[in-house]
Amino acid sequence: MSSSKLPIDFYFDFSSPYSYIASEWIEALAARHGRTVRWKAVLLGVTFQAAELKSPVSHPIKREYSLLDFARSARFAGVPYTFPSKFPVATQNAARVFWWLDASDPQRAADWARHGLRAYFTRGDVDLSNGADLERLAREFGLAPGQAEAVAGDPGWKGRLRDACAEAVAAGAFGAPFFVVDGEPFWGNDRRDQLERWLERGAF
Amino acid sequence: MSSSKLPIDFYFDFSSPYSYIASEWIEALAARHGRTVRWKAVLLGVTFQAAELKSPVSHPIKREYSLLDFARSARFAGVPYTFPSKFPVATQNAARVFWWLDASDPQRAADWARHGLRAYFTRGDVDLSNGADLERLAREFGLAPGQAEAVAGDPGWKGRLRDACAEAVAAGAFGAPFFVVDGEPFWGNDRRDQLERWLERGAF
Repeated sequence: MSSSKLPIDFYFDFSSPYSYIASEWIEALAARHGRTVRWKAVLLGVTFQAAELKSPVSHPIKREYSLLDFARSARFAGVPYTFPSKFPVATQNAARVFWWLDASDPQRAADWARHGLRAYFTRGDVDLSNGADLERLAREFGLAPGQAEAVAGDPGWKGRLRDACAEAVAAGAFGAPFFVVDGEPFWGNDRRDQLERWLERGAF
Repeated sequence: MSSSKLPIDFYFDFSSPYSYIASEWIEALAARHGRTVRWKAVLLGVTFQAAELKSPVSHPIKREYSLLDFARSARFAGVPYTFPSKFPVATQNAARVFWWLDASDPQRAADWARHGLRAYFTRGDVDLSNGADLERLAREFGLAPGQAEAVAGDPGWKGRLRDACAEAVAAGAFGAPFFVVDGEPFWGNDRRDQLERWLERGAF
């Protein structure tokens, strides 16, 4: 492992099934190649809007395929998956908590990301946009009562998330998961093999 | 190899880079698992319209990524690739010739598909929507002078292509390449590994 190797930027949204699947393999893949991962919570809607896109599930025909493919891609990756009863949901509050944690401890922020993604995509009945659900997740995670709500309503953390979304768009993200390694962008859970080849051999 | 195994339906567009890449591996993949391939030329625009989608290259931000990803995905698959000087182009004439050939010899139609895809995506200066270019390709392929133009202007083959596009949409296609095997849909060159697992083990 060389200390000169740059981290992998990993842009994700808490309500993105492919982000969830990727979140389950990205750390091991990075570690195999002496890299670290820089997790970055963003809002998929902001990246869609910048690229004049909509969610795949808001398109006729593509919606049905996408729902099938989310589940099949999770099985293919060996990742547990239960389609959430409410989908998609607004994730800005979970993302603000992420950035609040990140300011002092990026590793703990990544742990929160995994906690939120796993809860949303495996329990089936979690609604990240619901205050009571978010509070329950925050308490499970070890946060003080009311802390998540306070962070979610704080203009400072709202601004931090806005900046993160703008940075993602500037980096070329128009969806999630979106990875950047050594300046090279990779979009989608399905670019795992290309990302791995890049890490193994460099530019190809 | 069991004769009871269904063929793999392979919907492609002559102007789709990911269709081109997939066209270079689909036959070998099918053969490894005792399957045949049923090639089906369609118009990407018709499937986009049905799903209220646009080409990835007509979206800001996603355009730049897509151009990079077309080339990188070709290199990843070990397939020669030169970005066409005119892209995308209308492909209905090439597709009508495909269906004309298909009516008497599906294997020869598949050969025409490969001939057209390779010419468009490796020579760099071929415009499939241009009458002279199409005529040159048709002559290289062994068609009689003027045959391609006659087929392209024939209401019967226009209708056959229309039917093929409608069938693709009915099968759930909203882009290309789109595969259906045993009723299971797979969208994209990047679903190759999932398609192969399906062929190996059945439903997963």
